[in-house]
Amino acid sequence: MAQKHPITLYTMGTPNGIKASITLEELQVPYNVEAIDISKNTQKEDWFIKINPNGRIPAIVDHSKNDFNVFETGAIMTYLCDFYDPQHRLMPEDPLARSKVMQFLMFQMGGIGPMQGQANHFVRYAPEKIPYAQKRYIDETKRLYGVLEIALEGTDYLANNQYSIADIANYSWVICHGLLGIDINEFPRVKAWLKRIDERPAVQKGLRVPNERLATMLAELENKSD
Amino acid sequence: MAQKHPITLYTMGTPNGIKASITLEELQVPYNVEAIDISKNTQKEDWFIKINPNGRIPAIVDHSKNDFNVFETGAIMTYLCDFYDPQHRLMPEDPLARSKVMQFLMFQMGGIGPMQGQANHFVRYAPEKIPYAQKRYIDETKRLYGVLEIALEGTDYLANNQYSIADIANYSWVICHGLLGIDINEFPRVKAWLKRIDERPAVQKGLRVPNERLATMLAELENKSD
Repeated sequence: MAQKHPITLYTMGTPNGIKASITLEELQVPYNVEAIDISKNTQKEDWFIKINPNGRIPAIVDHSKNDFNVFETGAIMTYLCDFYDPQHRLMPEDPLARSKVMQFLMFQMGGIGPMQGQANHFVRYAPEKIPYAQKRYIDETKRLYGVLEIALEGTDYLANNQYSIADIANYSWVICHGLLGIDINEFPRVKAWLKRIDERPAVQKGLRVPNERLATMLAELENKSD
Repeated sequence: MAQKHPITLYTMGTPNGIKASITLEELQVPYNVEAIDISKNTQKEDWFIKINPNGRIPAIVDHSKNDFNVFETGAIMTYLCDFYDPQHRLMPEDPLARSKVMQFLMFQMGGIGPMQGQANHFVRYAPEKIPYAQKRYIDETKRLYGVLEIALEGTDYLANNQYSIADIANYSWVICHGLLGIDINEFPRVKAWLKRIDERPAVQKGLRVPNERLATMLAELENKSD
């Protein structure tokens, strides 16, 4: 089969997955999608471990760079900006402005991502109901949303008052707040910022990669909370 | 009081704290240290929230850049490389090589850091003993060490066979494995890599910022396991 596009994205419709697909859509990089079925543990197969030794989605392969592999969403986003964002649409050129983007990207990578992920586990998936762990991770997720609420005071975006991968990274997790029953009305600036990002056509396209599943779940939650 | 040095580092002796101090020592950047007492919640005081809205250590202020603040250890490390590593000692110049460093830096930020941190919480600090949570995070920490073990096959360092901030970031957490009772002998390449990094004078200096506490704890664990 001919490789039509420079990038192949291995993904599924999760908060981490859409970080990559939204970034690709925003930068209008042509890419092929390979849907990974984690219920079949496809991401633990040998061929995938060669792409991502951590056995997680998403990952990308850049065929225009001798099949260079990139894993970890934060690194996928900075890679795409380094090679496919000559106009600095998602990452500014000035090094101090870049640092501000990196700070909120790292905040998502080390904070909102793993903590909201643990909340998802204990609220939705864990075989035992453990109130201590549920409370710990819901509280921490809400505390981190509170940090975004502070950061968004007087500005439309998290860094430099300019849309960037820092916004995409945090949006991709925070938009899934309803899965945990968190009331976003407690965070009015975050709510307005989510809406601002949600209205971008590239975001709506990226949310639907590799399929409608996540977008449908979020729409159902939205209707329930009306 | 005169500010003698360009950087002030707000820190304490923790895995995240030493990521910053080891990077500063390796790059020989002159810096002042302000020890933060988290037992007194100093990191939640208004003046500190202005430096780091997330209320966490470490954070830096760069007085040579109009008191520019940087929070999140991953962002502190890339900032220091951008501004204080003209010889590319900790971050290569080639963009593909840089991406490999970023992948393992993000792996630490999103994986080893938060998961080993949660293991610490449930094994050492949580008021309730919750076997499910202890096992979950110890197992995940060991799985992540296993990813490092794969990555270190045939190479001395995590990215490009060249020492970088990716090594410092992961080292700073993995060196604390003894606090969780994890036997590093299960990961022979990781063990050899830890020793390789441990022998660097800058690492030994950075481990002792702001004081001897962490180095002493690690030395005591080392003696016990002999």
